[in-house]
Amino acid sequence: MGKLQALLHIDEPGKWRLTLANAKNFIDDVGLDRVALEIVANGPAVQIFDAVENDADQEIRVLLKQMQELANNNVTIIACRNALKANSISEDLLPGFITVVPAGITRIITKQRDGYSYVRP
Amino acid sequence: MGKLQALLHIDEPGKWRLTLANAKNFIDDVGLDRVALEIVANGPAVQIFDAVENDADQEIRVLLKQMQELANNNVTIIACRNALKANSISEDLLPGFITVVPAGITRIITKQRDGYSYVRP
Amino acid sequence: MGKLQALLHIDEPGKWRLTLANAKNFIDDVGLDRVALEIVANGPAVQIFDAVENDADQEIRVLLKQMQELANNNVTIIACRNALKANSISEDLLPGFITVVPAGITRIITKQRDGYSYVRP
Repeated sequence: MGKLQALLHIDEPGKWRLTLANAKNFIDDVGLDRVALEIVANGPAVQIFDAVENDADQEIRVLLKQMQELANNNVTIIACRNALKANSISEDLLPGFITVVPAGITRIITKQRDGYSYVRP
Repeated sequence: MGKLQALLHIDEPGKWRLTLANAKNFIDDVGLDRVALEIVANGPAVQIFDAVENDADQEIRVLLKQMQELANNNVTIIACRNALKANSISEDLLPGFITVVPAGITRIITKQRDGYSYVRP
Repeated sequence: MGKLQALLHIDEPGKWRLTLANAKNFIDDVGLDRVALEIVANGPAVQIFDAVENDADQEIRVLLKQMQELANNNVTIIACRNALKANSISEDLLPGFITVVPAGITRIITKQRDGYSYVRP
């Protein structure tokens, strides 16, 4: 069987916990070797990356740790440059596991064209 | 003409009314014989099924009745087992028209791969 | 290269700013000549069109102007008749750039079947 390709889209800051739980449930259900998964964050959802450089609270630390674990399992985690600029977040200070793209919206559209399923938790 | 295949995804408890209205509008617009429709509930949206066993209020009763009517019209209504567990909802007490799957996220992804359109009200 | 086909779905009134920003970012990123874009509004999101005939506040005026500019760039902007009726909005008073369809949900489903990517900001 081929891999199951999927993109999770998040633009609301309050949806990180649910989005990352979806990613984990998907991997646990079908197994890492069948997963091709990408998480694309744009809009206000990127504000979580601002907290990285500041004194992030406990919940945000947990979420960032979950992202790191997903990234270690070959989940691609993408932030939209337009959204980072709009929220005055420096790319230099992003966690190393983040990939920045010029426009998250384009990524979401092209990945579906290429056969990825779209999920918006 | 072939059937129009679609999956409605709901994970927010407050979106049941809108989601079920979308299902009804779709059927009314294209006709039952052209519809292949599935509703997948995960995340906190499954909390509505907890109300079943308790003294559900009037609005929830109306929503559950609408689900039953959709199910009578061959709409598949699915709940995610991960979400049921996370919300301490016993599968034994679910309405009979609900199908439980191990992971709602996997269902959403595989149905799109199989040609279903995705809608997130 | 062919055009990138995409449909933006909006049903929450508070998501207009983000949805229109997504449309603009997409066009700016890939260029108008590669874009085939449609925005479908159903549910309570159509309430913005009620404000047209009334004394719309400044923020709504800005959003309607952005819609007009997108429409000028061949972005199709669609409102669902079911949603207009549910919100008691007369079609006669809609801005000229709006196309009304009988059921927004059907449009969303058929466009994906026809190869459009789906995005729900």
